Amino acid sequence: MLEAVVVGAGPSGIGVSIILQKMGVKFTVLDRNNVGSSFLKWPKQMKLLTPSFFSNTFKMIDLNAITYDTSPALTLQTEHPSGQEYAAYLKKLAEHFKLPIQGNTNVDSVTKNGDVFTIKTNKGEIKTKYVVWAAGEFQYPKIHSFPGSKYCTHNSLITNWENVEGDEFFVVGGYESGMDTAINLAARKKRVLIIDKDNLLNSEDIDPSRTISPYTKDRLRKVNTDNLIEFHTGKVIRVEKENDEYVIFTEKKKLRSKTKPILATGFKGSLSLIKGLFDWEDGKAQLNSYDESTKTPGLYVTGPMLQSHNMIFCFIYKFQQRFAVVANNIGIKLSKDVTVIEQYKKEGMYLDNLEDAKDECAC
Amino acid sequence: MLEAVVVGAGPSGIGVSIILQKMGVKFTVLDRNNVGSSFLKWPKQMKLLTPSFFSNTFKMIDLNAITYDTSPALTLQTEHPSGQEYAAYLKKLAEHFKLPIQGNTNVDSVTKNGDVFTIKTNKGEIKTKYVVWAAGEFQYPKIHSFPGSKYCTHNSLITNWENVEGDEFFVVGGYESGMDTAINLAARKKRVLIIDKDNLLNSEDIDPSRTISPYTKDRLRKVNTDNLIEFHTGKVIRVEKENDEYVIFTEKKKLRSKTKPILATGFKGSLSLIKGLFDWEDGKAQLNSYDESTKTPGLYVTGPMLQSHNMIFCFIYKFQQRFAVVANNIGIKLSKDVTVIEQYKKEGMYLDNLEDAKDECAC
Repeated sequence: MLEAVVVGAGPSGIGVSIILQKMGVKFTVLDRNNVGSSFLKWPKQMKLLTPSFFSNTFKMIDLNAITYDTSPALTLQTEHPSGQEYAAYLKKLAEHFKLPIQGNTNVDSVTKNGDVFTIKTNKGEIKTKYVVWAAGEFQYPKIHSFPGSKYCTHNSLITNWENVEGDEFFVVGGYESGMDTAINLAARKKRVLIIDKDNLLNSEDIDPSRTISPYTKDRLRKVNTDNLIEFHTGKVIRVEKENDEYVIFTEKKKLRSKTKPILATGFKGSLSLIKGLFDWEDGKAQLNSYDESTKTPGLYVTGPMLQSHNMIFCFIYKFQQRFAVVANNIGIKLSKDVTVIEQYKKEGMYLDNLEDAKDECAC
Repeated sequence: MLEAVVVGAGPSGIGVSIILQKMGVKFTVLDRNNVGSSFLKWPKQMKLLTPSFFSNTFKMIDLNAITYDTSPALTLQTEHPSGQEYAAYLKKLAEHFKLPIQGNTNVDSVTKNGDVFTIKTNKGEIKTKYVVWAAGEFQYPKIHSFPGSKYCTHNSLITNWENVEGDEFFVVGGYESGMDTAINLAARKKRVLIIDKDNLLNSEDIDPSRTISPYTKDRLRKVNTDNLIEFHTGKVIRVEKENDEYVIFTEKKKLRSKTKPILATGFKGSLSLIKGLFDWEDGKAQLNSYDESTKTPGLYVTGPMLQSHNMIFCFIYKFQQRFAVVANNIGIKLSKDVTVIEQYKKEGMYLDNLEDAKDECAC
């Protein structure tokens, strides 16, 4: 029997695994594809929203790093890595730390009996004492947001903006992914109307998870000099198809589009597969202060799934701070040598008191 | 008599002053112009090299912030503020904290007699117990780097790249300011040869102060698709003028230029005015672990002058970590309430052990 299984080989799975490896935990990492494969599915033009800079030596970890002593800025020599580039960084780390990755493995179910978890996969059954759920969200687009959403295309399914045909587009959702969609279209001289119930550009909220990043605002200012991008504030009620046209009904207006409306509605959590293993409150899986399920001890959640949110990619700089918290808790329970955690604390990559973050959203 | 005088109302002067103000120190800030005025002299197109992002709530202070609870990314809504924008951020803070700024005041000399400093200015004499030297460097371009440098123009004197005439340029110096010069020229379809004794683009050094920033590398890749920018590795020996041409002699080659060579040779320290107040070793003013002169107790140095370097702007994220160290030391000596320092420590803006920075250059 294994001591731990990490599900998902994205930034959070790799980040936690590196610490488990250093502690000498007997574990494996399962991924339905391979290291960083969700990032490989990003549209070619999409970049991380948080800037990378190698300031680690002054205890300000690169915002996109998953260990205190590495930096995508150093490895990739760019400030906003593309999905392709970021996957290369993750792969490099997985290889450097010789992580036990088991790719092409689909998890079908997770159950717990006594103190033992049984994970059923397409490659057979695995038994383990602890499970770290680090499956991301990019593979679960939110596509059923309103009646008629089947007539729309989710932005995550567009792999290259060069190939999109049409002159005028309607984008449902004005968060980061909606803005990114609009910017890519406007850069190709297409007109875009962004529809959202909130006006996020003028939001007074200071939490980066609930507002538009400076990177996106800079890009928007640059691309939108001809006002190709416009905004409509109003909730979308439904979409209908009339002959060759799509009709978008918002609470205020009826809009006609010749092109398929684009859904920039974000992603669902990846916890649905194991939802029975959590207590739920207000749509949030209940976790203790070590990010362990209150209902199923031994099951930890890490990464953008920590709490609910609306972002295309809930920032790495937030969940990177919790890797060592989770690994430490597992290490202690397994009676491992956890001195490596001291280094994480010293280097500023261990945030155990989320109250300190003065921020409702922990991810 | 004042308890303290801060010389310079740039990021380091304002950053330290805010803490002194909170401690109730009786002090004043002198500036030869006004808050952030050096930044107002930056070329219109020049931006801070370090990216701003509001990650403060996760103890990763905005790299360009001067307090733990403010962020240029939030205030200015951009990732790479221009000089103009950054000056606005500084001004906003100076006003918010009601700092006692005395502008248009030129310091002529600083002397110490017993425990008292006398600062002579164009507006009269000031007596004080402590001095914080926070004068920047941007006003002191290095223009006498080699014989014939008088035939060249220092890049800091070019206020707008739109106005530069000519088709081909030779830039002496391949650090950040040389790269910035070349990028601005190439963006206007001019050919540029960068001359430097080192090839900094391929430097293996990981310290951001001794290599080229990701921001600059990204810009370079973007602008240099037509290879308008080229590099010559070789030290410049001298420059001569022959009729209408400038002849640049490097250790390897003789280059002819129709346009004035551009010096991107960086800046001298601003410590020259008070050099007698320091012990010097290897060209560096000797300071104790509180950044206080070993020769003249009570005189502190903060900002990019902390140690010698070659950058156009030695990064804010480095020297921001020392504001509270200096202020704390002064506060304790003045028997002030220094509890505010605890907050700086808690929020990750207090780096007292520079050994931890694993980095020779402390600024």
